[in-house]
Amino acid sequence: MSNLPKQVYIKEEGPREGFQIEKAPIATEQKIRLVDALAQTGLDYIQVTSFVHPQKVPGMADAEAVVAGITPREGVRYTGLWLNQRGLERAIATDRLYLEGKLTLYASNAFLKRNQNRDPAQQLAAQPELIAMYQAHGIPVRTGFVTAAFGCNFEGDVPVERVVQLVADMRAIARDKGEDLSLIGLGDTMAWANPERIRQVVGAVQDANPDVALSLGVAHLDAAVAGLGGCPFAAHAGAAGNICTEDFVSMCEEMGIATGIDLEKLIECAVLAEEIVGHPLPGKVKTGGSLAALRARRG
Amino acid sequence: MSNLPKQVYIKEEGPREGFQIEKAPIATEQKIRLVDALAQTGLDYIQVTSFVHPQKVPGMADAEAVVAGITPREGVRYTGLWLNQRGLERAIATDRLYLEGKLTLYASNAFLKRNQNRDPAQQLAAQPELIAMYQAHGIPVRTGFVTAAFGCNFEGDVPVERVVQLVADMRAIARDKGEDLSLIGLGDTMAWANPERIRQVVGAVQDANPDVALSLGVAHLDAAVAGLGGCPFAAHAGAAGNICTEDFVSMCEEMGIATGIDLEKLIECAVLAEEIVGHPLPGKVKTGGSLAALRARRG
Repeated sequence: MSNLPKQVYIKEEGPREGFQIEKAPIATEQKIRLVDALAQTGLDYIQVTSFVHPQKVPGMADAEAVVAGITPREGVRYTGLWLNQRGLERAIATDRLYLEGKLTLYASNAFLKRNQNRDPAQQLAAQPELIAMYQAHGIPVRTGFVTAAFGCNFEGDVPVERVVQLVADMRAIARDKGEDLSLIGLGDTMAWANPERIRQVVGAVQDANPDVALSLGVAHLDAAVAGLGGCPFAAHAGAAGNICTEDFVSMCEEMGIATGIDLEKLIECAVLAEEIVGHPLPGKVKTGGSLAALRARRG
Repeated sequence: MSNLPKQVYIKEEGPREGFQIEKAPIATEQKIRLVDALAQTGLDYIQVTSFVHPQKVPGMADAEAVVAGITPREGVRYTGLWLNQRGLERAIATDRLYLEGKLTLYASNAFLKRNQNRDPAQQLAAQPELIAMYQAHGIPVRTGFVTAAFGCNFEGDVPVERVVQLVADMRAIARDKGEDLSLIGLGDTMAWANPERIRQVVGAVQDANPDVALSLGVAHLDAAVAGLGGCPFAAHAGAAGNICTEDFVSMCEEMGIATGIDLEKLIECAVLAEEIVGHPLPGKVKTGGSLAALRARRG
């Protein structure tokens, strides 16, 4: 296992990605409470809200209030999600967020049509304008992300070659505009991945892009505290949800992979998240406790 | 990934291991219904009940009635769990079960003391009599199992060397009585394992026993439909539960590893199990459906 990373970098998406799927409204102060608690754990990159249209996702209508309400902690980058120019402008206007430019391409044509009402050519054609928008605001574009890179509920299996081609396309488009996509993310949006498929897809993308870091299978990972969330637009009744931050941190720490995170504090956040949503969340470690705590208790 | 097995062999333990932890009583006819449904899926080895003392585990007091009530399907081996001579005699008396002799050693001395009230020397000393008991009934002893092989809530980390020694001890004891333990199982009884630890422990046991099959990490695996269960004696509030049979089958089939199981029928069993216990069970695929079904739906 010498190819394991020494350290992993976790972007916490629970407050945004997690709360988005909840049916019951979450009070703004509860969201703020969770974000502030997460910032005490050692997590240094937290996506706190989503600047989407309030009619499309009513639960995120308080995006500005959440950002205004948090107590920023030094060394922690707070960010948001936006899907268009208007969303980015709202994020910029808060004047409190860490903003990174990111290109996102859909590997599933059916999911692209459904979510964006675009075909593959239109998808590519829209990227230069997006880069220009970031550049106009002085925001670097370093990340390229491929959605549904391992398969899609609406389209089925996604060919590896298509993922490799999309990464090549997005990198070429970025290069034309003077940007270098040095971090490539591959999203398993609808839980189609398995260890063998990950090996195939990540391997093929790595072979074609030996100079970039890959966000999946290497050292960067998006996760959600307590396993909050799941994509509400992905046609999966009871979507499987996200990688649970504290369970992942527990595994990494047990394997000797540094996370920089205080697992005990993170478990408290997971318990808080469950309290806030008012129903059981899938994370395991929050119930059983960390192995470090069990070791200490018998000492 | 050329070291992946072509086929995995699953022993379904949901009806026994799963129902044992449930607080509410499960009606005998419901247990029978689940076992009969599981037998329709291609699962060919099902542990249907536990012959333990009815005062210790009241929910298993109907063991004989469950065995008498099932409709045996050809090619399916039905078995039970027993922990002593009396339990084995009850299992034999049903005259319907497939019986295998198995030696079980605890790698955690604290858990051994707690569960069996024995020390390590007493544990070893008890094995020859157990083998003799099986031999008296003409039951072969082929499996050796190490409980808490990856760590223990009551004792903490378990040294790899101890696990290797226990396997050597149990094989020597069996050999002295003319039996060959050709299948070695390593149990992660309290969820202490991680991929790196599994590599270390399984690797060390394999190195020391190149002639045996290992039940963990190779091709034999115990699982419970819908993720039923968890050890009620393991001091883990909300124990993490067992490997979920249908989620594991789904992953194997997606990876091209044969299981011989009809996943759609198995998902129906998982839904039934959830209906029977009356609360959510952790399996994921039962909610989202199989990827094969999603592929077919769009076809």
